[in-house]
Amino acid sequence: MAKLPPLGRRPFLKMHGLGNDFVIFDARTQSLRLNYDVVRRVSNRLTGIGCDQLIVMEPSNRADVFMRIYNQDGGEVGACGNASRCVATLVGHACTIETRGGLLSATPDGASSATVDMGAPRFGWDEIPLAYPMDTLAMPVAWEGLANPAGVNVGNPHAVFFVSDLAANDLHTLGPKIEHDPLFPERVNVDVALVQDRQTILLRVWERGAGLTLACGTGACATAAAAIRRGLTDRRVTVHLPGGPLTIEWTTDNRLLMTGGVATAFTGEVDLDAYAG
Amino acid sequence: MAKLPPLGRRPFLKMHGLGNDFVIFDARTQSLRLNYDVVRRVSNRLTGIGCDQLIVMEPSNRADVFMRIYNQDGGEVGACGNASRCVATLVGHACTIETRGGLLSATPDGASSATVDMGAPRFGWDEIPLAYPMDTLAMPVAWEGLANPAGVNVGNPHAVFFVSDLAANDLHTLGPKIEHDPLFPERVNVDVALVQDRQTILLRVWERGAGLTLACGTGACATAAAAIRRGLTDRRVTVHLPGGPLTIEWTTDNRLLMTGGVATAFTGEVDLDAYAG
Repeated sequence: MAKLPPLGRRPFLKMHGLGNDFVIFDARTQSLRLNYDVVRRVSNRLTGIGCDQLIVMEPSNRADVFMRIYNQDGGEVGACGNASRCVATLVGHACTIETRGGLLSATPDGASSATVDMGAPRFGWDEIPLAYPMDTLAMPVAWEGLANPAGVNVGNPHAVFFVSDLAANDLHTLGPKIEHDPLFPERVNVDVALVQDRQTILLRVWERGAGLTLACGTGACATAAAAIRRGLTDRRVTVHLPGGPLTIEWTTDNRLLMTGGVATAFTGEVDLDAYAG
Repeated sequence: MAKLPPLGRRPFLKMHGLGNDFVIFDARTQSLRLNYDVVRRVSNRLTGIGCDQLIVMEPSNRADVFMRIYNQDGGEVGACGNASRCVATLVGHACTIETRGGLLSATPDGASSATVDMGAPRFGWDEIPLAYPMDTLAMPVAWEGLANPAGVNVGNPHAVFFVSDLAANDLHTLGPKIEHDPLFPERVNVDVALVQDRQTILLRVWERGAGLTLACGTGACATAAAAIRRGLTDRRVTVHLPGGPLTIEWTTDNRLLMTGGVATAFTGEVDLDAYAG
């Protein structure tokens, strides 16, 4: 196998959206290709920089920026709502962001809040994707106390369970079991939601490849879309995650708009060759 | 209460010794006083920088440097062997380090290893301290399967349990119970050790104020001293922690020498006023 060129010392930003935290490298003018091992080591919270997701901002032919998103486990994912808000504040103006999950547009509202147009939710069984055809409004499946999820794809796949008690099911146990169920050929994010009233949802999310996180932006979008599709809430709803609130609006022209806070924790510089092993 | 002056933007180093990780501020030429809340917020791994302990290097009248050590919970502690090795490599030459636990001397061995003279271990019941007089070689107390610890103070208090199976006791449950037992008026670090042979110990540590960590330097010292005092090992022993090995030597002139690796994960700059709340 060809030896990789040196990665060198690179500046980075550490940001978070409601406690969902990111190491962000800006590779728009100087390219940066990270392999699986480097991503995992840099994401390690004790011996690396530490983050839920590692983000690389790259040039795009189709948008203002390409946002590459790696999970802690080194795998790439198609979308991350919280990271999109962070990147929008870094771009500094209303912009389009290309991801592996598609194009989205975002508008910063100062340095500490942004709205992201997450595009249209998809509900086809093969769009989520599922292993075989099934009603995605209320899937006829159950894992112990978690039953009949809605299937939604908002750039990445979600199974949304509506419950009457958020603490009744142990997501540490059921999360990985559902994530890796053969029903989901690309695995799945697991959302457990309590509808408080027609404008308010409480949500916990087991993120594919990342586990329980403080705030999953795509989870808030998928959950709001599922709740609205089932007629449980209005088309504009505040989703309260452990890390804070996100406001989701499903517009009449079929776009999901997500608004919420972002913050820069610190700036840094890292010798990436020390992580190349 | 008087309002604190601005803390400003400050550079820092993120280092670790065997995965026991530190945010290190150098305040030798520009002073830095951090309160409880700032330490806790900066130590948060999702919304701050994240670390087991936050270190501030300050001027000292008695030594080359004063090393102030904060745990994640904002409290100050007297000694940290892994941090001492990191600070020694930053000073760059054989040096003396003052802590709240006393003076120690350290010698860097290049940029990635150092030996720290941790001083003499203390075994008096009132030096550990315990709440009342007791034999500290094998204390007549037990917490479920953990019984008859050795009491040792190596700048901070340790209760060292020798076991035949490291996994037999749940340190997540027993660690905090022992740490907060009224027997230990200044709380205690909990060491669970398996003597493999006369040169080798396997060790897990529940650190006071920090929980289970990958590698506790003072724990390795306290455990080696207790093992040697009980005649279980030679006077030079390698202690294997989850994060890697530390070599401990108890010299004939009653000093504990600890040798092990250190690494710089990255460098950064942080706006501390954003954490002043």
